[in-house]
Amino acid sequence: MQSTWGGIEVGGTKIVCVVTRGPEDILAETRFPTTTPNNAFSKIIRFFEATQPETLSGIGVASFGPLDLNPDSPTYGYITSTPKPDWINTDFLTPLKTAFNLPVAFDTDVNGAALGEHLWGAAQGLDTFIYLTIGTGIGGGGMVNGKLLHGLTHPEMGHIWIPHDLEKDPFSGACLTHGDCFEGLAAGTAMKKRWGQPAEELPIDHPAWELEAYYLALGLVNYIFTLSPQRIIIGGGVMHHPKLIKMIRGNIQKFLQGYVRHPVLEENIESYIILPGLGDKAGVLGAVGLAMKSQNFTE
Amino acid sequence: MQSTWGGIEVGGTKIVCVVTRGPEDILAETRFPTTTPNNAFSKIIRFFEATQPETLSGIGVASFGPLDLNPDSPTYGYITSTPKPDWINTDFLTPLKTAFNLPVAFDTDVNGAALGEHLWGAAQGLDTFIYLTIGTGIGGGGMVNGKLLHGLTHPEMGHIWIPHDLEKDPFSGACLTHGDCFEGLAAGTAMKKRWGQPAEELPIDHPAWELEAYYLALGLVNYIFTLSPQRIIIGGGVMHHPKLIKMIRGNIQKFLQGYVRHPVLEENIESYIILPGLGDKAGVLGAVGLAMKSQNFTE
Repeated sequence: MQSTWGGIEVGGTKIVCVVTRGPEDILAETRFPTTTPNNAFSKIIRFFEATQPETLSGIGVASFGPLDLNPDSPTYGYITSTPKPDWINTDFLTPLKTAFNLPVAFDTDVNGAALGEHLWGAAQGLDTFIYLTIGTGIGGGGMVNGKLLHGLTHPEMGHIWIPHDLEKDPFSGACLTHGDCFEGLAAGTAMKKRWGQPAEELPIDHPAWELEAYYLALGLVNYIFTLSPQRIIIGGGVMHHPKLIKMIRGNIQKFLQGYVRHPVLEENIESYIILPGLGDKAGVLGAVGLAMKSQNFTE
Repeated sequence: MQSTWGGIEVGGTKIVCVVTRGPEDILAETRFPTTTPNNAFSKIIRFFEATQPETLSGIGVASFGPLDLNPDSPTYGYITSTPKPDWINTDFLTPLKTAFNLPVAFDTDVNGAALGEHLWGAAQGLDTFIYLTIGTGIGGGGMVNGKLLHGLTHPEMGHIWIPHDLEKDPFSGACLTHGDCFEGLAAGTAMKKRWGQPAEELPIDHPAWELEAYYLALGLVNYIFTLSPQRIIIGGGVMHHPKLIKMIRGNIQKFLQGYVRHPVLEENIESYIILPGLGDKAGVLGAVGLAMKSQNFTE
């Protein structure tokens, strides 16, 4: 019998849960807004209890961070220093392990999505790539040399510092910790604060989008110089704008100024900076991938 | 009999060649200024011809870049789009292979140095770390998940964009390609242009150093957010200032603002941001390491 898996994507705005046999065989799904941990745990547990949890081979959690991913740490499986006050120092693993007698895998939302894209989406066959989400916040994860990127803790790519021309853009930034870091200038929250309305309500020809493409390209160029990824996949709500990705690609070539030479950058950037192959399902299917990987059900 | 290896470090300012049995058993060494490729090849070949090249197991080259490291490319082994006019599109491998019937390994100066530090220096036992050099230019390489960082091509970490406050520092930047990128603001060349004298001649209490520590910390924080390295090793001539590394560490903690939580960042940053264990030999011993690794003489 084919294995069945649980996946939980914990995003800054919404939480998505699935029970599935694979990327195209979702048996049950629920989604609800991210409010408090107690509210989230009761909804998550109710969802899985209704779907024969005893038949699951494991559950994967792909969550916003920062997270403690060190299995030797007393706070392993916690969301730690997040700017979301209700979620600071929240133990995510124990409530799930208490409710279900199942292995629970745990990683960042973006590492999860990167794994999903690697298994079933736009990063198949690549061993070094980045997955970014431009939503409420900006998060980045990925794979380097064939393994998810962890290092000391895990990347927090959204918080790099990029140039901010205060004359052109006097907005002071929306990151609660760093002010005008990359996320503070370019995440959905920043767009909403700067322009007075949410990104999805801004007309597609609003000047907001030119500035957005400028900042996103600056951040991406920094990742290209630092990591030399074979591809960058960008998901998240802000990327729903139909022309944004094209505008970003043009700016990237402008900022690189030919310094990094590779045919894909010069002649085929459409295959280099791309939207997720799994669309908005990258996160939750990535969570499923984390569960499968932890049980050695993937390469 | 123990194997003997050749190593060539090709830096922006000088070229160093060694013949050695290991990190502490250097049999012959030469160094000379980086002028033109013809001049360099004749000196390199003369050096190795004088040291019984037939006894060598291989030669490793660790060079400034950008480089073509794709073995399937017609320009594999070339220095490509470098800002040094004499060195643009220089085939580094063919002259060596023509002169000596030996395997020649080739990588960036900083990936070489990273490998040297991993084998014999300050990165032993780590699988994800960065090696930076702050000299004529700024270069960064390293290891992620136990392998040297390559991806699409190789990192060009010096060229990330960082905030540049033109009121505080009206200098327009010294990078020939990007103007005021990280290297353009913080490499030795930038210090010399901004202050009118080379870094090594500036008094150790000159305000130049405070600005330098500020920019270097901004760049390092971006690498920490992007890659989450277990350690950052910083070499290069600019780092010879006796207090610079301490000033950088302080700024890093200030810029992170507690967002990335780990005991090593909060309580033991002296072990996190460090000078090379191999000192100024990291580059050339790294070149030797590249040769050894390509012949499977290392793990």
